[in-house]
Amino acid sequence: MKYTYTHPRPAVTADCVVFGLDDEDLKVLLIQRDNAPFEGCWALPGGFARVGEAIEETARRELAEETGLKGVFLEQLYTFGDPHRDPREHVITVAYFALVNLAAHTVRPDTDARNAAWFEIEDVPELAFDHNRILQTACQRLRGKIRYVPIGFELLPRKFTLRQLQQLYEKILDRTLDKRNFRKKILKMDILAELDEIETDVAHRAARLYSFDKRKYDRMTEEGFNFEL
Amino acid sequence: MKYTYTHPRPAVTADCVVFGLDDEDLKVLLIQRDNAPFEGCWALPGGFARVGEAIEETARRELAEETGLKGVFLEQLYTFGDPHRDPREHVITVAYFALVNLAAHTVRPDTDARNAAWFEIEDVPELAFDHNRILQTACQRLRGKIRYVPIGFELLPRKFTLRQLQQLYEKILDRTLDKRNFRKKILKMDILAELDEIETDVAHRAARLYSFDKRKYDRMTEEGFNFEL
Repeated sequence: MKYTYTHPRPAVTADCVVFGLDDEDLKVLLIQRDNAPFEGCWALPGGFARVGEAIEETARRELAEETGLKGVFLEQLYTFGDPHRDPREHVITVAYFALVNLAAHTVRPDTDARNAAWFEIEDVPELAFDHNRILQTACQRLRGKIRYVPIGFELLPRKFTLRQLQQLYEKILDRTLDKRNFRKKILKMDILAELDEIETDVAHRAARLYSFDKRKYDRMTEEGFNFEL
Repeated sequence: MKYTYTHPRPAVTADCVVFGLDDEDLKVLLIQRDNAPFEGCWALPGGFARVGEAIEETARRELAEETGLKGVFLEQLYTFGDPHRDPREHVITVAYFALVNLAAHTVRPDTDARNAAWFEIEDVPELAFDHNRILQTACQRLRGKIRYVPIGFELLPRKFTLRQLQQLYEKILDRTLDKRNFRKKILKMDILAELDEIETDVAHRAARLYSFDKRKYDRMTEEGFNFEL
């Protein structure tokens, strides 16, 4: 089949930066390309837009096809439209990002990818196309955003300690936070409900458990807030 | 000429939401379409991407062609990729936004537009395509963003009073702010330099003049900050 237009058109793709948190680190999901260009090279999951398919659906479909990942909340990151970012021709890519609980998502390469794996951010190799730049943009967005909207709280158990919450922030920000300062600021945000319960089955002194106040949390998410760490 | 591809491609456009501030209000720059679809209808300035042209350049070129506006700092807003947003076919648009000093920008319709004019946000009519939705997204972004990054300060004179700064924020946010609260918060941001000068040629009591501390301002812009009003 051939498709003909009166003006030349750039191609459009969607790419996904999926961050995964496990007990140790912030990781990113990559696939190993099975085709030229950059055959054998690691890259962000993604692929070509189909006519009639919403561009976010393209991202969702390609993510599932290449990594098996489904049901992920994708947020639009940025559209990269430099005409030289793909050696074949002018390809505009709409990039999305997501933050998921790594343990809850089994990854397997599917069609269009030789391999799919989680990489620690520090260990990410040279990627295909401008994907290192897209990844960098996503890291900045994630770490910038966590300062004014609650992020990743859905990755915690329903009842959690302030230590667990601090560890979540430390993993995402990739640095150690001052305990006293963190507690003061997180409580000041006024989105936590202090429960009348403490941890069980822990070797150390059992800490107070908290849960999110969903109503306040939604309001804060909408309004944004500052969380200077 | 005909351009042929092995797979069908959505078309790509860029659209611009240019906000202008004058002495009274926050306005938006619209053009009246000269072609079908939506002929005669008001719309955001914008047009089709060219192969080999960076997508931001498309936005910049179309803005100049349709309104005469040049040298505007455009920031990417969002990419709208719903396949039904254009009645002709699947058109993905990359939307940009900007905030300019209205007085400094003379607007004249050029090629591809019948007319170009500034509209008060409240008086914007039903626009072509999904442009009302794009405008709404831009308003939310602008008003959300002003809460954590300094916006629009370049629209003020080099030396300004806190009253002038408050008026700027009030116009963008479209609401009255408490004077005492505003001053406390803006000074706490620590991006202003208090000058050893006061207003001249004013009927009311002359107020202290301030200027921006560019170094602090750049740092804050990069890091983001909260400005709860």
